Amino acid sequence: MVRAFSYELLAEDPSGARLGRFHTPHGAFDTPVFMPVATRGTLKSLTSAQLAETGAEIVLANAYHLMQRPGEEVVAAMGGVHRFMAWEKPVLTDSGGFQVFSLSDRVALDDDGVTFRSEIDGSAIRLTPERVIAIEESLGSDIAMPLDHCIAFGAEKGDVARAADRTVAWARRSMAAKTRADQAVFPIVQGGMHEDLRLECAQRLMELDAPGYACGGLLVGEPRETAHAMLTAVCRALPRAKPRYVMGVGTPADFLDAVLCGADMMDCVLPSRNARHGTAITRNGPVRMKNAAHARDERPIDPACRCYTCRTHSRAYLRHLVHAGEPTAATLLTIHNLACMTDVMRDARRAIAEGRFAAHRREALARLSAGSAGTVDSAP
Amino acid sequence: MVRAFSYELLAEDPSGARLGRFHTPHGAFDTPVFMPVATRGTLKSLTSAQLAETGAEIVLANAYHLMQRPGEEVVAAMGGVHRFMAWEKPVLTDSGGFQVFSLSDRVALDDDGVTFRSEIDGSAIRLTPERVIAIEESLGSDIAMPLDHCIAFGAEKGDVARAADRTVAWARRSMAAKTRADQAVFPIVQGGMHEDLRLECAQRLMELDAPGYACGGLLVGEPRETAHAMLTAVCRALPRAKPRYVMGVGTPADFLDAVLCGADMMDCVLPSRNARHGTAITRNGPVRMKNAAHARDERPIDPACRCYTCRTHSRAYLRHLVHAGEPTAATLLTIHNLACMTDVMRDARRAIAEGRFAAHRREALARLSAGSAGTVDSAP
Repeated sequence: MVRAFSYELLAEDPSGARLGRFHTPHGAFDTPVFMPVATRGTLKSLTSAQLAETGAEIVLANAYHLMQRPGEEVVAAMGGVHRFMAWEKPVLTDSGGFQVFSLSDRVALDDDGVTFRSEIDGSAIRLTPERVIAIEESLGSDIAMPLDHCIAFGAEKGDVARAADRTVAWARRSMAAKTRADQAVFPIVQGGMHEDLRLECAQRLMELDAPGYACGGLLVGEPRETAHAMLTAVCRALPRAKPRYVMGVGTPADFLDAVLCGADMMDCVLPSRNARHGTAITRNGPVRMKNAAHARDERPIDPACRCYTCRTHSRAYLRHLVHAGEPTAATLLTIHNLACMTDVMRDARRAIAEGRFAAHRREALARLSAGSAGTVDSAP
Repeated sequence: MVRAFSYELLAEDPSGARLGRFHTPHGAFDTPVFMPVATRGTLKSLTSAQLAETGAEIVLANAYHLMQRPGEEVVAAMGGVHRFMAWEKPVLTDSGGFQVFSLSDRVALDDDGVTFRSEIDGSAIRLTPERVIAIEESLGSDIAMPLDHCIAFGAEKGDVARAADRTVAWARRSMAAKTRADQAVFPIVQGGMHEDLRLECAQRLMELDAPGYACGGLLVGEPRETAHAMLTAVCRALPRAKPRYVMGVGTPADFLDAVLCGADMMDCVLPSRNARHGTAITRNGPVRMKNAAHARDERPIDPACRCYTCRTHSRAYLRHLVHAGEPTAATLLTIHNLACMTDVMRDARRAIAEGRFAAHRREALARLSAGSAGTVDSAP
């Protein structure tokens, strides 16, 4: 029997960082991997050809958004999310649980599921674990995230425990409901900032023998050290032979930290959101393109970057486009930022393969913070 | 002596339409040609690679906008407009005279030039014919339009005559001021809707022996028949051996009409502006992507189109992006609309070469209007 999903653990660094490869029906990707976020079936301001050219190997889409518009049945009728968005590589769909609970004043929660108001027409939408899996099966993503209960930071431990219990129960129901062999469901470890709850949640989810696991509910306002402690504990508890996806990580520095904690997959909207706000990400820290220092700067954002934007345009041109409010500015900066994240992860993988990730991370973090404090880029 | 600019008249159709080729320091382009408008040094929502892929052979930029931001000296310091925007083919710069006079309540005009308020910081900006040429020489475009006086439609004939006189005087000063052998100046025929004024203006400008001429001040509110009569009269008066640029033409139908009148070069923002408003241009008429009819339509915008958008995406996907307000919608529709205009002009050139342009135009106009009245595309 051919297994549609399999993980190869290629190397373990002394630091705890892992090098691996995850195989899906739409091809394999190397881990640690950065997953750009194409919420509504498009990476904002990019065509799918431009997205592929950044080096992206897997993208994330959002079931919550796509079910509301255009509707999962439309995507299914168009041949599924890959064909719909013209993306041949793997796709991971988030359930939208995080989005639902972010709208907490309009959400009614019970053990069976959640009801919330559509952000498009205000109609009531009911999501259950089974309904979310049905939506994601219609979309046809390679990896589907189940509905989970992501509780707010600072909640009482009893409430956190109940949310984790509900998350486990919903993960079981999700696995029981799934019918597609070509779609993997990754159960999500919750448990807030309580290591005992996190470990118990992880243990119970591991009984489901899923092809991979996720860690949710981190980087929601807690101190960075707390997040790292939780993520490390969860990654150590999870099976070595399965990939670990940490949901919603932020900056390049956060990515390096998550890799150190043992995470394999991470997504974030920051690289594309920062691009739209005129900030380029580089391995030497952020570059704010509006700064006057770039007005006559013939250099690319990063001379070491091989992306289309850096091969083609000067900082002076990019600054002009940002100042003029031209939409092409967002396109060019998004191309660069995604390519930069791809490079950051490629560097990390190389360092893991060579058993020097801890030193690599220290050097990379030093470069990231040295640059962001530099006179050029912090000028008003 | 090598001439930097030369025009080859390759064929004349019985209808009056012409097939030609214009050579510039940045290569040649075939005429009739559509010139996409990259006002601020970028085609809105496209990278220069995407713009080239649409088949564009020459683009238009605007000296009025670029002098205000980023400033022509910045563009010059970055190696000129071609290098600045990473566009290796010919560039034509408009003087911005039309933009200046469109802001007529803030303009002070005299025989020496115009003074207006910057739209960026409100400061007073003085433009003279000499200053405009200096700006365009700094930008380094292949074809520079001189400052002209474009008078409002409906003005008294005496005022129209004075504006035409001023335009001739300014064209003479522009030609006298120019210093770059690698930049052509195309004098602009004015004269409103008065054939005698137009012909007199053309005659006086021809004394300048410029490498090409333009016809301005048409399609400013007059009946279409009047515009065609004026354009035909001007084209017949101008030298056969020089290209004729008609400024600011509109729809695909307008382009076919301008070609019939004897025009060789035309620009318009409509193809890209319509794209941003969710309308695709096709040889079978406009397609409004928001229409419910496209919700599950797997077909591309135009199965006969070879552009990236039509090779890659369904109408259903494009409709989704337009509804979701995704910036990628503008990118994909702009790519298609510019490619469609390129195709319209290529078809026109082929028909001229085969001596059947009048019949071709009739058929093309019938297709354009049949499609736009079709049930699919006019649905709410």
